[in-house]
Amino acid sequence: MNCEIITIGDEILIGQIVDTNSAWMAAELNAIGIWVQQISSVSDDAAHIAKALDEAKQRAEIILITGGLGPTKDDITKATLMRYFGGTMQFSEEQFAVIERIFSSYGRIVTEINRRQAEIPDSCICLVNQNGTAPGMWFDTATHVIVSMPGVPYEMKELMRSEVLPRLQNRFTLPAIVHRTFRTQGVGESMLAEWISDWEDQLPAHMKLAYLPSPGEVKLRITAKGTNAETLNREIDLLAEGLYALIGKYIYGEGEVKLEQLIHAKLLEMGVTLSLAESCTGGTIASMLTALPGASRYFTGSLVAYSNKVKVNSLGVSPDTLKHFGAVSEQTVREMAIGANRVFKTDYAIAVSGIAGPDGGTAEKPVGTVWISLAKPNAVLTKQFRFSTNRERNIRMASLAALKLLSENL
Amino acid sequence: MNCEIITIGDEILIGQIVDTNSAWMAAELNAIGIWVQQISSVSDDAAHIAKALDEAKQRAEIILITGGLGPTKDDITKATLMRYFGGTMQFSEEQFAVIERIFSSYGRIVTEINRRQAEIPDSCICLVNQNGTAPGMWFDTATHVIVSMPGVPYEMKELMRSEVLPRLQNRFTLPAIVHRTFRTQGVGESMLAEWISDWEDQLPAHMKLAYLPSPGEVKLRITAKGTNAETLNREIDLLAEGLYALIGKYIYGEGEVKLEQLIHAKLLEMGVTLSLAESCTGGTIASMLTALPGASRYFTGSLVAYSNKVKVNSLGVSPDTLKHFGAVSEQTVREMAIGANRVFKTDYAIAVSGIAGPDGGTAEKPVGTVWISLAKPNAVLTKQFRFSTNRERNIRMASLAALKLLSENL
Repeated sequence: MNCEIITIGDEILIGQIVDTNSAWMAAELNAIGIWVQQISSVSDDAAHIAKALDEAKQRAEIILITGGLGPTKDDITKATLMRYFGGTMQFSEEQFAVIERIFSSYGRIVTEINRRQAEIPDSCICLVNQNGTAPGMWFDTATHVIVSMPGVPYEMKELMRSEVLPRLQNRFTLPAIVHRTFRTQGVGESMLAEWISDWEDQLPAHMKLAYLPSPGEVKLRITAKGTNAETLNREIDLLAEGLYALIGKYIYGEGEVKLEQLIHAKLLEMGVTLSLAESCTGGTIASMLTALPGASRYFTGSLVAYSNKVKVNSLGVSPDTLKHFGAVSEQTVREMAIGANRVFKTDYAIAVSGIAGPDGGTAEKPVGTVWISLAKPNAVLTKQFRFSTNRERNIRMASLAALKLLSENL
Repeated sequence: MNCEIITIGDEILIGQIVDTNSAWMAAELNAIGIWVQQISSVSDDAAHIAKALDEAKQRAEIILITGGLGPTKDDITKATLMRYFGGTMQFSEEQFAVIERIFSSYGRIVTEINRRQAEIPDSCICLVNQNGTAPGMWFDTATHVIVSMPGVPYEMKELMRSEVLPRLQNRFTLPAIVHRTFRTQGVGESMLAEWISDWEDQLPAHMKLAYLPSPGEVKLRITAKGTNAETLNREIDLLAEGLYALIGKYIYGEGEVKLEQLIHAKLLEMGVTLSLAESCTGGTIASMLTALPGASRYFTGSLVAYSNKVKVNSLGVSPDTLKHFGAVSEQTVREMAIGANRVFKTDYAIAVSGIAGPDGGTAEKPVGTVWISLAKPNAVLTKQFRFSTNRERNIRMASLAALKLLSENL
């Protein structure tokens, strides 16, 4: 089954925003056996949108459109689709209820412009958008399904999950496609490729392996295509055993789960508490954990100790240690972790100190040098890392390495 | 002058990678007066590539292609373009010299497969790729210019800068395009649209206004097209005056600068110091500021005070205040901000305390209720906000609102 994605909006065509929606949608569609044939970004222009639809209909049965559904004058997708598919505007009471709820939660009054967002052509099925004011639209002609969604990522994602993907599975007979993703941390892509080379060579023809590297981790994804998902899953189970035997040490989880989610679940289960002392990561580890609801049940606090004075006054790092070994050293980071457990009265504490860059590096401690310490009941571990020359990557990689050290020792 | 971008590669269509090349290229093209009409991502398939070229040629004089130039069997762009434009393969000594240099720097021997990367059709001009093995190709028919480049971002960018953009400026007479972006914070898209409706209606025909909302902020972008950039800029200056008169209070900056960058620059200029006491934002504000190189010159530290005990012990919030008013209250957040300035010995401190959700809300203080306080020399300000029901958005919006409060009071 072929699909095309059309994203509408001048902001993409002038390079103001990167279209991240399409990649997310393509991955979700693949997971249910729908192949994306082409992705097109077009301007907020009625004739251009209609032309793009004409072209896409020649290649695909399913067309998913995002963008151009806002309340303002430059958003013309809805009117364009009504002209394209016919019909007249009708008012969706259900969507209007959401609009009213959203506005009242902000303490604002619904204006006429916003009220009109609840109107949709009667030639489509209204997909109620619970996270925003613009509804999705599902047009089903005999030959094609065309769906229009808002371009705001979290509105589009919720509509895809709750409405579009289930409806597509009902509407079409789709092949079985099974993906299994293994998440590794602490080893590079080429090293992994060498270690699992023989294992990879014996994968059957209906399976494909992809390496998905991002700063600090590499995901390995098996994609299997067949007629029966259960059979495919059993085949992958067997292959996974072989993979774990080779690189199990570096696999921290499977699927969409993130490292911080695993730690979050484990800490809640153990009923212990955690604190942080962050220097070069500057609050990033704290923000990763506190992004998860319920973090307050184990996470007590973090001291972002950016200056040496704070390391001494608030964490109790000895001025002598700082003087003799420097802020980025085994000794300092060890005292930071112990200090965090003392200050925050926690069971576990992680401390991170490093040179994120671009300045501050020396021959002995170049940019990318990071020390991480974990103080747990009855023991303190420290570990040195050497990451990259890029500040953003260093912060991200140090945060993930710190979480990995913690997860290995819970 | 119209341009289309075609990106080739299955990895985009299965959602394995996000196409960031197109946005970068579009922004560069816009800056020299070339309008990108459409961006299309197509598969590694000869017929599909040819079809995409046919369609693009109907809409644009310039077509830029990236991807599909690697040495492996799935890379078919070069052969496809030779069939499309005619000609025979010839060998580029200049590109081969680069290939040899790259391989010898890795200590590797050039294989036959790599040698063949220096071959290009004689129907195009070879654009030597100094950063990689695959050359760019410039096809100039009487009516169209079609350029093929590698998909690796840093190879493509160097070819664009050194070859493609200068050649396009020589080949075509280009109009002037000017963009001006106004960044607003603290007010929604539809409210802005109402307030500036009359102003928007009187924009001349050669100008377009776009609303670009993201959590916590809305950008307004004017795009003007003409023959002279200076004239357009003067016109926009006049229009901007009208805009500032209407919504100036909500505009925190212009262009690509982010709120945290403005604050960063201002704090460095003022030579003052800043600390934070974050509760519901959980380290996010600290991570936004410390992402910027040089933050250590003003940013002393942050206390992520997730538990009430930490608010008392580390920030000196009075247990009575917490008992009588609760953690999410004007009184508590005020004491947190004052406490942060005392603990970190700073000039300015921001404190945030709120209910991020999804749990923890009450009738009186629903999810999304956030108190923010700014303690500055000789004054303490506090402000209450009511954001959304979504945890991620609440954290993001509270962080931006806190930075906005700070930026207004520096």
